[in-house]
Amino acid sequence: MVGGGQLARMTHQAGISLGVRFRLLSEAADSAAAQVVSDVTVGDVDDLDTLRAFAEGCDVVTFDHEQVPTRHLRVLEAQGYVVRPGPAALEHAQDKILMRERLSADGVPVPTWAPVATLAELEEFAEEHGWPVVLKTARGGYDGKGVHVVDSLDQASGVLASSRATGVRLLAEQHVPYTRELAALVARSPSGQAVAYPVVETLQIRGVCREVVAPAPGLSAEHAALAQQVALEVAGVLGVVGLMAVEMFETVGGVLVNELAMRPHNSGHWTIDGSVTSQFEQHLRAVLDYPLGSPAALAPHTVMVNVLGGDLPDLHGGFRHVLARDPGLHVHVYGKQVRAGRKVGHVTVTGADLGDLLERGRHAAAYLRGDVDE
Amino acid sequence: MVGGGQLARMTHQAGISLGVRFRLLSEAADSAAAQVVSDVTVGDVDDLDTLRAFAEGCDVVTFDHEQVPTRHLRVLEAQGYVVRPGPAALEHAQDKILMRERLSADGVPVPTWAPVATLAELEEFAEEHGWPVVLKTARGGYDGKGVHVVDSLDQASGVLASSRATGVRLLAEQHVPYTRELAALVARSPSGQAVAYPVVETLQIRGVCREVVAPAPGLSAEHAALAQQVALEVAGVLGVVGLMAVEMFETVGGVLVNELAMRPHNSGHWTIDGSVTSQFEQHLRAVLDYPLGSPAALAPHTVMVNVLGGDLPDLHGGFRHVLARDPGLHVHVYGKQVRAGRKVGHVTVTGADLGDLLERGRHAAAYLRGDVDE
Repeated sequence: MVGGGQLARMTHQAGISLGVRFRLLSEAADSAAAQVVSDVTVGDVDDLDTLRAFAEGCDVVTFDHEQVPTRHLRVLEAQGYVVRPGPAALEHAQDKILMRERLSADGVPVPTWAPVATLAELEEFAEEHGWPVVLKTARGGYDGKGVHVVDSLDQASGVLASSRATGVRLLAEQHVPYTRELAALVARSPSGQAVAYPVVETLQIRGVCREVVAPAPGLSAEHAALAQQVALEVAGVLGVVGLMAVEMFETVGGVLVNELAMRPHNSGHWTIDGSVTSQFEQHLRAVLDYPLGSPAALAPHTVMVNVLGGDLPDLHGGFRHVLARDPGLHVHVYGKQVRAGRKVGHVTVTGADLGDLLERGRHAAAYLRGDVDE
Repeated sequence: MVGGGQLARMTHQAGISLGVRFRLLSEAADSAAAQVVSDVTVGDVDDLDTLRAFAEGCDVVTFDHEQVPTRHLRVLEAQGYVVRPGPAALEHAQDKILMRERLSADGVPVPTWAPVATLAELEEFAEEHGWPVVLKTARGGYDGKGVHVVDSLDQASGVLASSRATGVRLLAEQHVPYTRELAALVARSPSGQAVAYPVVETLQIRGVCREVVAPAPGLSAEHAALAQQVALEVAGVLGVVGLMAVEMFETVGGVLVNELAMRPHNSGHWTIDGSVTSQFEQHLRAVLDYPLGSPAALAPHTVMVNVLGGDLPDLHGGFRHVLARDPGLHVHVYGKQVRAGRKVGHVTVTGADLGDLLERGRHAAAYLRGDVDE
């Protein structure tokens, strides 16, 4: 796996059961994943020679994040290395304009959008679809970075100028009057087998995922089926191999695809403790072309709450308290230096009483962060 | 953790969630655990200097097996290293005569027994308690090794001669007319907090654990409570810290303690997929003096079946088949060279229909072993 973040860390954890010999290419010797993996190469994941040396001896190369240059991955593929998901799929997770073009062409529901390079183009878009407009950089955005909700040309001018300066293209999107955000997690193997997890509700604050409820409370059977169908269709159309999370807006009339992630995803962390087969094991099964596991939920409700860095220098001060308060709590710590706002862990609870689960999950995450003290 | 077997492998896997920095002292560089752990020292676990060098820099030293010499552990303790479970507890898992003496003195129910060194002593025991007699070596036995059921003095003479030659003491036990074997898994922390898992039924074939059903089917509330109470009492009396499995005989009148294991144990592998807190996470919580997690079962029934080495050179031939046949199957592979009769993995299924679970678990284990081919 290329990239040493918490996704690689948890993928290795899952792979231990499958007997996977996990090799890691990590940016740093003490990354979240490198701390727990035996076979680690430290190197620049953007460098072709480093990637090739790493791929040598791997049955399959897969990824902790989507930022590895696809031009390198095309070279690796051409030279016979097995890369999953492949660059032809992955570039749709890297470039939002490419993704929107492709999904629009295939009739997948997406928010109304257009590429914009100038104030005149933005003005035209806004005249047709109204303010505010969501401006997004086509590449490089994550956790809310690269997304700007603008109410006027004045507000947009800085974003446009910065786009011209950096050469990163922009797209404009209609500000969708959505009721909530959903995520549909699917896995697809090279042989085309696919599974869909229960559709979840995600709560984002300033663009950062804060909590996930599985399955999405009160979701109609119609919208649930639609969301899964859309995600499976996207996976098939793009030829995705591995896990894919499709972030969606739920509207009165259905769902609209917002973002794609072609790897295990924050919206699927609940599956470790809440489903038969975790997204991490599922990703490994998919990229290794093993039969996929059941995505069924283990309990009526699962709540996952992210632990973000707060005022405390580490999490271990709060650790004993939250474990003592709640013997049913699952704590997942990523081994990362605590910094304000950084995702440093998550907690999960499963059960039948959603209100109780939300209280427990939120309290534990807030306590670990240092926001509450009892 | 000292010892590089599958227990250390699965303990590391559990520790990743807790953010534990796991250090391993392994007999070999490619042991089951060393394959998946980042921080590995290869060395002789029976050598005091090696143990001390390893303990330096560990917050707590714990064990994958009970065979580390307690005389070395006493030295480490005296020099201020934290050893859990400590040698004063551990020696009762190493020496069956010591264990039986202590438990008998404390009124814990055990089979009628006596140390025997001569044919005359054995004859006296057999005259009082009848044939057959179970002869056990006090130390070094595991997986049925060191246990001999003998019907006459003639049959016993070889065992007695071997005991005299090796200096390993023997005990004689009444052959208990038990209805089945149970195991009670408990965890105890240094602060005295303790939890008891649901009591399970274990099936042993020629002394080797083959399958575990949790909870033990049809176990009366009275015997279940008795088994847990006995296990908690043993943990308290011996000052155990960490996981302890108490293997018991169920008789018409109650339970009798057979063996103790002071570490995660085969009878607790079902907890990985079948309970809120796995025995491996629980062991880490206990030895680190973290609050203990809930031992509650997740489903009405969990079946765990060991995968023993069979005629196939490896398990991966059967891997795809069993995963494809049963998307709800949990497979755990230990990364060990397959040899006939060796424990190389286990499978677990959870659900409401015990008959279905037994069929699925047994089929998968047999298929991986190479005993069935469809």
